[in-house]
Amino acid sequence: MRILGVDPGLTRCGVGVIEAGASRRLSFIHVDVVRSSPDEPQDLRLLKVYNGLCGKLDTFIPDVVSIERVFAQENRSTVMGTAQVAGLAMLAAAQRGIPTALHTPSEVKLAITGNGTAGKRQVEFMVMRILGLNEMPKPADAADALAQAICHALRPAGAIQGGEREEHLTVAQRQWAEAAQKARRAKGPARRDM
Amino acid sequence: MRILGVDPGLTRCGVGVIEAGASRRLSFIHVDVVRSSPDEPQDLRLLKVYNGLCGKLDTFIPDVVSIERVFAQENRSTVMGTAQVAGLAMLAAAQRGIPTALHTPSEVKLAITGNGTAGKRQVEFMVMRILGLNEMPKPADAADALAQAICHALRPAGAIQGGEREEHLTVAQRQWAEAAQKARRAKGPARRDM
Repeated sequence: MRILGVDPGLTRCGVGVIEAGASRRLSFIHVDVVRSSPDEPQDLRLLKVYNGLCGKLDTFIPDVVSIERVFAQENRSTVMGTAQVAGLAMLAAAQRGIPTALHTPSEVKLAITGNGTAGKRQVEFMVMRILGLNEMPKPADAADALAQAICHALRPAGAIQGGEREEHLTVAQRQWAEAAQKARRAKGPARRDM
Repeated sequence: MRILGVDPGLTRCGVGVIEAGASRRLSFIHVDVVRSSPDEPQDLRLLKVYNGLCGKLDTFIPDVVSIERVFAQENRSTVMGTAQVAGLAMLAAAQRGIPTALHTPSEVKLAITGNGTAGKRQVEFMVMRILGLNEMPKPADAADALAQAICHALRPAGAIQGGEREEHLTVAQRQWAEAAQKARRAKGPARRDM
């Protein structure tokens, strides 16, 4: 299964592509950053990022697109542009009939390091190790897009994202559900924003 | 000049079209609401609203698309979807080479009633009067989209939206600049979100 991860952003939108083979073996395919200049009007920036994302989808033809879930209260000066780019990524995937998934930063950390509050360096280290890379892709948005794709591949089967049904869970599923619930409690109602 | 106003929303996205003739005489062309169901997945909802907006642009071929400016801190449970739909409207316009404008709710109220803090009923009354309608289009999203289009037509020439240059203003321009500044002060940094 080919997974394209997106770390949405208007100035830098990270895109990372991996292949998830048998027994969850993951291999690196591609990483890049789609950019638009803050000097350009908002509508042309959105068009540029959308076109860049469409190009990646048409080149790598993923089976699923995994996008970072954006919250309203995080980093207010850029969050609206970030939310809009996440929306464009969902649109571009839906136009091609490709399913989308949304994972929060804590879900990504948990899936990759086993700890939903892991630091950036630890996540980067594990991304390199999981994909067998000699160095971490730069800038951070590129690394985050790969982490997002890996998260989707490594998430426990039947991961509880909405906290709906929590009986008969495996240990990994229970950890996942607990981390998700913790994130929901910390975030409050905006958790359901997207 | 034909203006298509958008009141962005994921469940109900208002679209209003007016024609601005000689000496700022405005006439009503069309009003509608593009809908998506909260029961559907987010990506399919965005696709549906985007397709609906593209259909309106291709039917009415406006000279400009005027969209409500969305702030991060307003009504948190739906603001991300609203921001994403505003982004889709900008994308759809940019794909067709149609310029876009963003106006805040207080700019709309000021342009239509002369008072940036006017109530909803007063705005609706003036929308009906300006367009010569016998009754107000329902639901409210449809009326707000017409108000957004009228605002773009009636805004003072050279309206100061960013507060950059404020010398040699007419009375209307100065009122506009003051209302915009007041809104900026009330909103804080999130004013520049979109």
